[in-house]
Amino acid sequence: MGVMKGVIAGITPDTLMIDITHDVAPQNVASAAWILACSYRYFPAGTVFVCVVDPGVGSSRGAIALHAGDWFFVGPDNGLFSYVLNEQTVHGAVELANPAYRLPQVSSTFHGRDIFAPAGAYLAGNASEVFPKLGPALEPATLITLPGIGARRFGSSIEAHILHVDNFGNLITSIPLSMVPELFTTEHAVVTFLATGARVDQRRRFFADGEEDGRPFLYGDSSGYLGIAVRNGNAARTLNVGYGAAITFDTSGR
Amino acid sequence: MGVMKGVIAGITPDTLMIDITHDVAPQNVASAAWILACSYRYFPAGTVFVCVVDPGVGSSRGAIALHAGDWFFVGPDNGLFSYVLNEQTVHGAVELANPAYRLPQVSSTFHGRDIFAPAGAYLAGNASEVFPKLGPALEPATLITLPGIGARRFGSSIEAHILHVDNFGNLITSIPLSMVPELFTTEHAVVTFLATGARVDQRRRFFADGEEDGRPFLYGDSSGYLGIAVRNGNAARTLNVGYGAAITFDTSGR
Amino acid sequence: MGVMKGVIAGITPDTLMIDITHDVAPQNVASAAWILACSYRYFPAGTVFVCVVDPGVGSSRGAIALHAGDWFFVGPDNGLFSYVLNEQTVHGAVELANPAYRLPQVSSTFHGRDIFAPAGAYLAGNASEVFPKLGPALEPATLITLPGIGARRFGSSIEAHILHVDNFGNLITSIPLSMVPELFTTEHAVVTFLATGARVDQRRRFFADGEEDGRPFLYGDSSGYLGIAVRNGNAARTLNVGYGAAITFDTSGR
Repeated sequence: MGVMKGVIAGITPDTLMIDITHDVAPQNVASAAWILACSYRYFPAGTVFVCVVDPGVGSSRGAIALHAGDWFFVGPDNGLFSYVLNEQTVHGAVELANPAYRLPQVSSTFHGRDIFAPAGAYLAGNASEVFPKLGPALEPATLITLPGIGARRFGSSIEAHILHVDNFGNLITSIPLSMVPELFTTEHAVVTFLATGARVDQRRRFFADGEEDGRPFLYGDSSGYLGIAVRNGNAARTLNVGYGAAITFDTSGR
Repeated sequence: MGVMKGVIAGITPDTLMIDITHDVAPQNVASAAWILACSYRYFPAGTVFVCVVDPGVGSSRGAIALHAGDWFFVGPDNGLFSYVLNEQTVHGAVELANPAYRLPQVSSTFHGRDIFAPAGAYLAGNASEVFPKLGPALEPATLITLPGIGARRFGSSIEAHILHVDNFGNLITSIPLSMVPELFTTEHAVVTFLATGARVDQRRRFFADGEEDGRPFLYGDSSGYLGIAVRNGNAARTLNVGYGAAITFDTSGR
Repeated sequence: MGVMKGVIAGITPDTLMIDITHDVAPQNVASAAWILACSYRYFPAGTVFVCVVDPGVGSSRGAIALHAGDWFFVGPDNGLFSYVLNEQTVHGAVELANPAYRLPQVSSTFHGRDIFAPAGAYLAGNASEVFPKLGPALEPATLITLPGIGARRFGSSIEAHILHVDNFGNLITSIPLSMVPELFTTEHAVVTFLATGARVDQRRRFFADGEEDGRPFLYGDSSGYLGIAVRNGNAARTLNVGYGAAITFDTSGR
């Protein structure tokens, strides 16, 4: 939201501000968490991420800042930072309780503007000094994380689900590529959708490999997870599935 | 439009440029005026707002710059600055007539690029010196403002309408919260939609209060106006209404 | 994509980054080429354009940088630079083969992040020194250009097609205004759509001229091409045509 940048420019005028995305479906915390997970590592050390996807405004969910890995994160304690918390060493977490780092008047519905943007702006100005002053320290283990962002292996089979549908309709599964090193070497590999029974057993190293035949295939997504795509098409539409769909991955040839 | 920023970067290279929004429906001046109204106060003093929503390109509507409150505004004289004109002291208004502050060639359809962006860029470089040179002074009272951006009280009843539908489908009414201090204390409060007869008589201080029951409720929007929302839902779709819908607000218990 | 800007900020921190658009339909190279064509001239000399619309990731299409006119361009060799190549003197073209100007790890699906953004960032830091080091020189004549971005005249008739549908539903034809100097002086001028037989024979100098009668009209688009619009309406929807539609323009009065 542009108004948040106005607030930031008023506090720390020389900040470089970059939009990661505005394409998160309203109130889809899991999708926002995913997009953040795919992005934050590519930003310079010291970057402050101000994140707002917030179905719980006005509820008891906390407003927090994290110092994790080489970065700072500001936003609601609603699972948005699940991947960050799983992947990085957390150097500190604080509750955004200090009114000195908020706008003078805080509305009940737009914490992005009134709480998160100011906290982010002050951090961008001088993170190490500001961070501990933002409010009382929190125990990282008490912060909210999303259920089931992982995948579980049972013998030749992995239970997982669809983490994200990208703008092209590609389906990103919750199976890290590092969990399936055999992806391109095993004789058989099939993803089955539990709800529809649809099976995807083609594999391609590149989108442009093979025929443009409208059939979905498995590939290694640039996010580091197993993906499902249709060449020059939309896998979500072809398979009629979306975010959260339960899948199994199997290499037994069944 | 990115090309407008290219023009600005060519004139005043070190300008910080912030997008307020690109999500205005084409040619919806009232919606754009509303978004500007909710945003401009949060930007630092001296900010130059370049605004383009312009159904009247090529018509006789003027191209103007305003110095109002602590800010500068550049755009068409079509009502876009209605709220600014109502809310702020106008220090000056000029017509963008001086070719020295336009691109060398002015098209008939893209004044944003050819007139507004250059004027904004020159203002961003040195507002006080540039402003009076942009063109002849205009009488602020002659500038166009939108009809009916207000609300009228008749006893226990207020006649108003929907000013804006936000990205979440929340309906923002034209009733300032300051006009209904009794919102959360009166026994009854109901908004009725004239076209459909739909009534909204629930009230919530926070989005997360009460049940997630799909029923619309009244709340105090962060814009400072009375809003109508559905928790984790879309009030515009639920009520099947949109921008401009006429409403009454009543506290008599009828 | 925000992550590309993160990569750029990490390499050349003080770069001003401007989004031209994110509204290109996925994998629509022709539309992206068109938007670039309408924009690049308005940016300051030395601007580096990083362009990604890329159906061919992983295929044998090259990753290239161009120095053309006063600007630099980075992106896939898939036709995206067709207009630039047609319109500007090409001072040099190189293949992005040097791993020193890529991210350490290059994925098979996100070359924007891994190849184009780093190359653009290094160019933005010091274009003249970096350009020749990006990789081996390419012969500009071997680069891919889109077929049929032009228009052909046969007597009083021109064969062309729809190059672009803008956000307002205006149809931009492939007929440069310089090719039809008679547009507003000839007695008759009609565009006929081959597929539907629909004819547009009204002409307007300005959108606001004449009646708001829902009828499509011909006008001179700000891009420098002949356009078709409906006042306060959507010509693409009214005429039920879109990108690529074949048209003829005729002034014979038939």
